[in-house]
Amino acid sequence: MRILFDHYLGVAEQRRLMEAFERRRAAVIESPTVVALRSVVNGGAGSVEEAAQRLRRRFRKMVLVGIGGSALSARLLSEAFERQRSLSVLDNVDPEWVSAQLKGLGRSFCLCVVTKSGRTAETAALTSLLLPRLRRLHGSDYQKAVVVVTGSESGPLREWAQKEGITCFGIPPDIPGRYSVFTPVGLLPAAFCGVGVSGLLEGARRLFEKLNGSAEDDPAWVAALGDYAHWRKRPICVLFVYSGMLARLRDWFVQLWAESLGKRQRLNGTLSPTGQTPLGALGVTDQHSLLQLFAEGPDDKTYTLVVKEGATKALKVPENAGGPSQWRYLEGKRLSDLFYAELFGTEATLIREKRPLLKIVLEGGMEEELGALLAFFMMRTAYVASLIEVNAFNQPGVEYGKRLSRAMLVGEELEAPVRWCRQIRV
Amino acid sequence: MRILFDHYLGVAEQRRLMEAFERRRAAVIESPTVVALRSVVNGGAGSVEEAAQRLRRRFRKMVLVGIGGSALSARLLSEAFERQRSLSVLDNVDPEWVSAQLKGLGRSFCLCVVTKSGRTAETAALTSLLLPRLRRLHGSDYQKAVVVVTGSESGPLREWAQKEGITCFGIPPDIPGRYSVFTPVGLLPAAFCGVGVSGLLEGARRLFEKLNGSAEDDPAWVAALGDYAHWRKRPICVLFVYSGMLARLRDWFVQLWAESLGKRQRLNGTLSPTGQTPLGALGVTDQHSLLQLFAEGPDDKTYTLVVKEGATKALKVPENAGGPSQWRYLEGKRLSDLFYAELFGTEATLIREKRPLLKIVLEGGMEEELGALLAFFMMRTAYVASLIEVNAFNQPGVEYGKRLSRAMLVGEELEAPVRWCRQIRV
Repeated sequence: MRILFDHYLGVAEQRRLMEAFERRRAAVIESPTVVALRSVVNGGAGSVEEAAQRLRRRFRKMVLVGIGGSALSARLLSEAFERQRSLSVLDNVDPEWVSAQLKGLGRSFCLCVVTKSGRTAETAALTSLLLPRLRRLHGSDYQKAVVVVTGSESGPLREWAQKEGITCFGIPPDIPGRYSVFTPVGLLPAAFCGVGVSGLLEGARRLFEKLNGSAEDDPAWVAALGDYAHWRKRPICVLFVYSGMLARLRDWFVQLWAESLGKRQRLNGTLSPTGQTPLGALGVTDQHSLLQLFAEGPDDKTYTLVVKEGATKALKVPENAGGPSQWRYLEGKRLSDLFYAELFGTEATLIREKRPLLKIVLEGGMEEELGALLAFFMMRTAYVASLIEVNAFNQPGVEYGKRLSRAMLVGEELEAPVRWCRQIRV
Repeated sequence: MRILFDHYLGVAEQRRLMEAFERRRAAVIESPTVVALRSVVNGGAGSVEEAAQRLRRRFRKMVLVGIGGSALSARLLSEAFERQRSLSVLDNVDPEWVSAQLKGLGRSFCLCVVTKSGRTAETAALTSLLLPRLRRLHGSDYQKAVVVVTGSESGPLREWAQKEGITCFGIPPDIPGRYSVFTPVGLLPAAFCGVGVSGLLEGARRLFEKLNGSAEDDPAWVAALGDYAHWRKRPICVLFVYSGMLARLRDWFVQLWAESLGKRQRLNGTLSPTGQTPLGALGVTDQHSLLQLFAEGPDDKTYTLVVKEGATKALKVPENAGGPSQWRYLEGKRLSDLFYAELFGTEATLIREKRPLLKIVLEGGMEEELGALLAFFMMRTAYVASLIEVNAFNQPGVEYGKRLSRAMLVGEELEAPVRWCRQIRV
């Protein structure tokens, strides 16, 4: 993995920030979450790989029930590589959508239930829909078609799984859902699909080794200082992914950045809302959608480009394809030539407009590169949180809505009914 | 369709803005693009439906080659309803992704090529890949498996189609790609998939009738005045879709808003960048991803919620599902109860935080409702453009990059090579 910086952060400014915040970096590296992340990465994926193997022998598909951080990394990993088994993710309770997903599941699927608390309402409801179906299919043997990933110490789901004799994997308490890609949350479904999960961990280890070295060589720290330098003027952070296979990286990043950094309370207890809004873009598709705004709109964004090097050269525009003669200049060109030329057009446009731009090139074995990339983003996020003085690892802002949802669901009186001022019918 | 306003726009402010900008509204309604839109909607979809019928009789799948506005509406419409035929969209030239899409196309597919200019490089390259394959499958009869949608007056693709005897539909010159959902660009693939396209047009007509009436009853105008009132303080515009089937509405809206409003040049010729960044969210999924930022982060966003009323009540959490006892409060509840309770939690959270919020409820037959909704968004966008004094219908910001891409592709010397200041390897 190469991380390229344009004028994202000037040399003098970098030196100044590095000196001012030296101790913050050390504190993040020693924080319980980062220590726990390094520990799961060093722990390997042996038991997860074994369980995945066992399931692969019997089932053609895994249905993952989970939402937010419990689903996003599995979806990303399973779609980033050629799959030997498929994964269906149930991460919404829209009944119409769920109906469509349930149709055509067939008989050969296993169920992976992921919720750290063991209480997530959406996950509980969807799992309850599927359990009777599994019992009808497999009778009293149904436990072999289920696997649970939940908090590693206690919780209702863990207790239930133990009682039922269902294989259960743990999520360490210090690792919140959106940082859980290297725990069984991400690794178990990925291994089921045939992803080389030890490669992912190896890549993450390579990135985490940078934490032992000098601040100048820690790419997440250099990037985070740049993010901090742009923070006040630029409320939007664009992740522009140039690889169709990594399209889901956007969703994973959006949750990580939004939920970690969008906070009202500062570490010293004062209240002052902060946060930067993450926006995902996909190249080359969004050159026909968002690039106009990026090039000519307000200078209120930072940009991170992610590019895979060495795309397959197998696809070539044939000679004499028989289309309009005006298309002939493309004949004999590789699709990858066109792809990288388009990427170059985007880079050149953003650089001409002097947009703060950082580029990450994935170049080696993809499992390792992706592992390093995910670790980079997690460290970058944790570093930025410490620089803007918020807790990167909680999410208190959604509790109020959750309480009201539950009250409505069980028929309690609502403290705050929603009223609208005005209505127009069409 | 009901459009509900909270304090998105106060009564006094609305009156003031309506008086100040009365003439702008009239100018938009009489603009060539809006006149052309109303004309295609009134023209019906007869010939498109016939062509789609003919293709449906012979082919199980349609492969749409197009990018940006040429693809987004077809994808949205084909996924919003139960499909009788399927649609594959090729809207990226990432060779790895294209390879994966081409695998498993089988033999029973027809090709729909969409590009208004007839010159879009990505579309030309991908079509050139597929034409030889169709000739191998169908010999000299291959034209019956191809349909073209392109500029209605001239252009290389139109001329080629006429020469080859390929069915060709036109896009009126005044309708840019991102406003083309009611032309054959959106309707032909939708009709192929089994969507009732006359219902879509009927819904759009209902919305366009509001343009003949008073300003207070024109929902797009009321919404646009609200958008304008928030414009300076709020650089981000969130579209929060509460329907899994409408997930692609986000992509369609993102292009419409970003490309129409993100402009440097004002109508009077002065240069001053403007634009609001569109951000898509999906309920309930993104309650576990973006809502934390929306609730506790900076008050720099406006919110439009889109909700489908009357979701199916068929799915119920069974009694005695056999999960953890702590999940029992969900037993006997419908999935739709949980879904709408979660939606309520989001609304209540945003209203408690006094976020500018507008809600659109789709309530009747879905084709008509969706038609009205898309027309609403297009008019709202055109109105906002006139208020902030930019051209809603061009996209000059992407020309520079396109020129460089092409130069790189054909091996010309580049005027502006991209150079990076610094690199860190991992």
